[in-house]
Amino acid sequence: MPAPKIAQQWLREILAVFYQRRTLTRGEVVEATGLNAASVSHALRFLLTSGTVIKTGEIDSGAGRPREVLRVNGEAAYFAAIDLEGTRLRFGLTNLLGDICCRWEHDFRYASRLEMSRLLHGVEMVLGGLDPSLHSRVLAAGISYPGLMEPDGHLTAVNLGWNRFPFRDEVERILPFPVFLQADGHTCVEAESSHGQAQGRENWMFVIVENGVGVGISVDGRPIDACGLKGGELGHCTVDPAAPDICKCGKRGCLEAIASSPNIVRQYFENTGAGAAPPADFPVTEVFERARSGDKTARVVVERAARALGLALSHAVNLFAPELIILGGDAISAQDLILPLLREALDRHALAGLARNVEITVSKLGLDIRLKGAASLAFRRSLADPMLLQKICSPLAVPYRVLEYAQR
Amino acid sequence: MPAPKIAQQWLREILAVFYQRRTLTRGEVVEATGLNAASVSHALRFLLTSGTVIKTGEIDSGAGRPREVLRVNGEAAYFAAIDLEGTRLRFGLTNLLGDICCRWEHDFRYASRLEMSRLLHGVEMVLGGLDPSLHSRVLAAGISYPGLMEPDGHLTAVNLGWNRFPFRDEVERILPFPVFLQADGHTCVEAESSHGQAQGRENWMFVIVENGVGVGISVDGRPIDACGLKGGELGHCTVDPAAPDICKCGKRGCLEAIASSPNIVRQYFENTGAGAAPPADFPVTEVFERARSGDKTARVVVERAARALGLALSHAVNLFAPELIILGGDAISAQDLILPLLREALDRHALAGLARNVEITVSKLGLDIRLKGAASLAFRRSLADPMLLQKICSPLAVPYRVLEYAQR
Repeated sequence: MPAPKIAQQWLREILAVFYQRRTLTRGEVVEATGLNAASVSHALRFLLTSGTVIKTGEIDSGAGRPREVLRVNGEAAYFAAIDLEGTRLRFGLTNLLGDICCRWEHDFRYASRLEMSRLLHGVEMVLGGLDPSLHSRVLAAGISYPGLMEPDGHLTAVNLGWNRFPFRDEVERILPFPVFLQADGHTCVEAESSHGQAQGRENWMFVIVENGVGVGISVDGRPIDACGLKGGELGHCTVDPAAPDICKCGKRGCLEAIASSPNIVRQYFENTGAGAAPPADFPVTEVFERARSGDKTARVVVERAARALGLALSHAVNLFAPELIILGGDAISAQDLILPLLREALDRHALAGLARNVEITVSKLGLDIRLKGAASLAFRRSLADPMLLQKICSPLAVPYRVLEYAQR
Repeated sequence: MPAPKIAQQWLREILAVFYQRRTLTRGEVVEATGLNAASVSHALRFLLTSGTVIKTGEIDSGAGRPREVLRVNGEAAYFAAIDLEGTRLRFGLTNLLGDICCRWEHDFRYASRLEMSRLLHGVEMVLGGLDPSLHSRVLAAGISYPGLMEPDGHLTAVNLGWNRFPFRDEVERILPFPVFLQADGHTCVEAESSHGQAQGRENWMFVIVENGVGVGISVDGRPIDACGLKGGELGHCTVDPAAPDICKCGKRGCLEAIASSPNIVRQYFENTGAGAAPPADFPVTEVFERARSGDKTARVVVERAARALGLALSHAVNLFAPELIILGGDAISAQDLILPLLREALDRHALAGLARNVEITVSKLGLDIRLKGAASLAFRRSLADPMLLQKICSPLAVPYRVLEYAQR
């Protein structure tokens, strides 16, 4: 039975709410979607009949009939999620609840050339964990990529050893389902929106400090598109035109040249006076640790980085007026050092009314953040596609088995 | 005859295209709206019958029937447009073509308290220029306001002598038609979108240098909302944390403290060594003129302002990746001095790929920019309102007279 045409938008809104909130009563679905009760009843009847939504319990409300607690059936659809981070390739198979059911990881040497066969192998490995009867329910893949993609799908990503590699064409050729691609900064935004602290927030920013400094910005609930050459470049804001630090982009005094993890390590080794280049695997967390235990050089370097980050963020705060800034990446492990200085810099450099308004926090999504974001992307884009939506809502061929995943 | 319900969106899109392009053939309407030819024919038949759209000529295409050239009938609707700039209050009556048919201006002493009776008087003066038979066709007012408005409609605007004045309530009380309000930066964005160089552009910024430094930002064709406390604060980006310049907001080294017109004049008088405060009416254009004629002090001050503007804009360019920056206000009269330095600063401080992509120009809408923006706001918001849309499309009571306005 195809989904009735009239109800597609209702189905979308209801499934989107279940993806975020997991279990809801009918009344909560009405409230969260803003749809009228009749539309919700109509759509839920359809989803319960197809087995896409299932009853998971009851709440005794004291008076009248007990209220049914509903959730989506995770087995109704699966998505492949791929995170092409530089030093580790992560693959996941997620279900309609957004849970990661199977995972696979490859080590990957930074800047060595990624072959598409390795990508295909990763997808096959996570599909291998799924009961074959459910393979037809794998609807789409979501991929989080580093670097800059051009409108024609060519990707330039130093980490992956790709220079204008025709990624979109190649990945669409090798994978047997629709593929949705997203720049890594935006994947983090997607993950925080769906599963993290930005749920229900309209104006907020995600700032990641790693090999570079990246930002994803959501304005009025819509991400500012940072794909291709479309902005969101916090890392190359000039925070000190007179700084001695030359960025890898060629400019002087970029935020990234002062506050990225490798540049924190670089400054630490320069300032200790040893003059030696840091060992390739010297971790930035070691600089943080030394700053904590009273190493003055380490402290000066970390404070400079935090203040530079605060100055750059003050511009973004003035321009976007976010209510929330979520820090991710290596900055998470230095939150005790960085957050107070960040707050101080915002108070000093952003307009008072706007600075006061911003909550600053760190991401709690951990290493899976991009994998969760890629899965959410695949889910959201599949909902928007009438054919894929119909697949999500099609009756399950075998009686569904309710698996309880560890992540539940 | 009420507009048939089904066609409201078609009517909106068609009227919006006529507002921007003025005259179109049927084929051009189809192309510009993206509607199908049958919908366009249906809607145009309705608009021609009501007299909202009129035939204004024919194009002999050589083969087949000559193509009709159509335009909207300016008399089908009128709007009051109000610009509450600090030193001059401007009132206009605009027609459905966006032409200013009548205008009225008051001098206004900066920071003296604006009385609502003066605002009402201005509206009455421009309505007085309209044939009484057409008064029922005045549908709405658009108002461009300075300062910061809170969500409840209270406005704080130093220029108007208002501190949390209940502006929205008051103006809705005294005017006999719906009122739409917009912060002045956004009104400029609206004007450049409808009538200026940003027509058809998606990602661009309007930067105004006057008593302050303001910005309006359009991302993917949507303005970032700077109403109330919602961002767009370029003027208070810290461009030099170590600068001696203290901003009126209390912070150090704000762009506005270095590059606004009064601060350019202030620095000029400080740097000449005379130590005297500038005369209250000393115009910034005089500093520009002296910089041109070889006055070194003037040149240093103007160059510092231009570089500060360039540095602040480089952050916005990195974050938004605009394709176009339009400069307005006093900066227009110094474009020969400012534009080359702005370009140089963008090249130095913004990411190369993004800096290259930006065209920099000055506004060509002149002193009427906010008046045109306020009119466009009233038009656009009226289109969105089913009742007002119906009024626009209602048959003209008297046979319409086609007036040819000077601005045509």
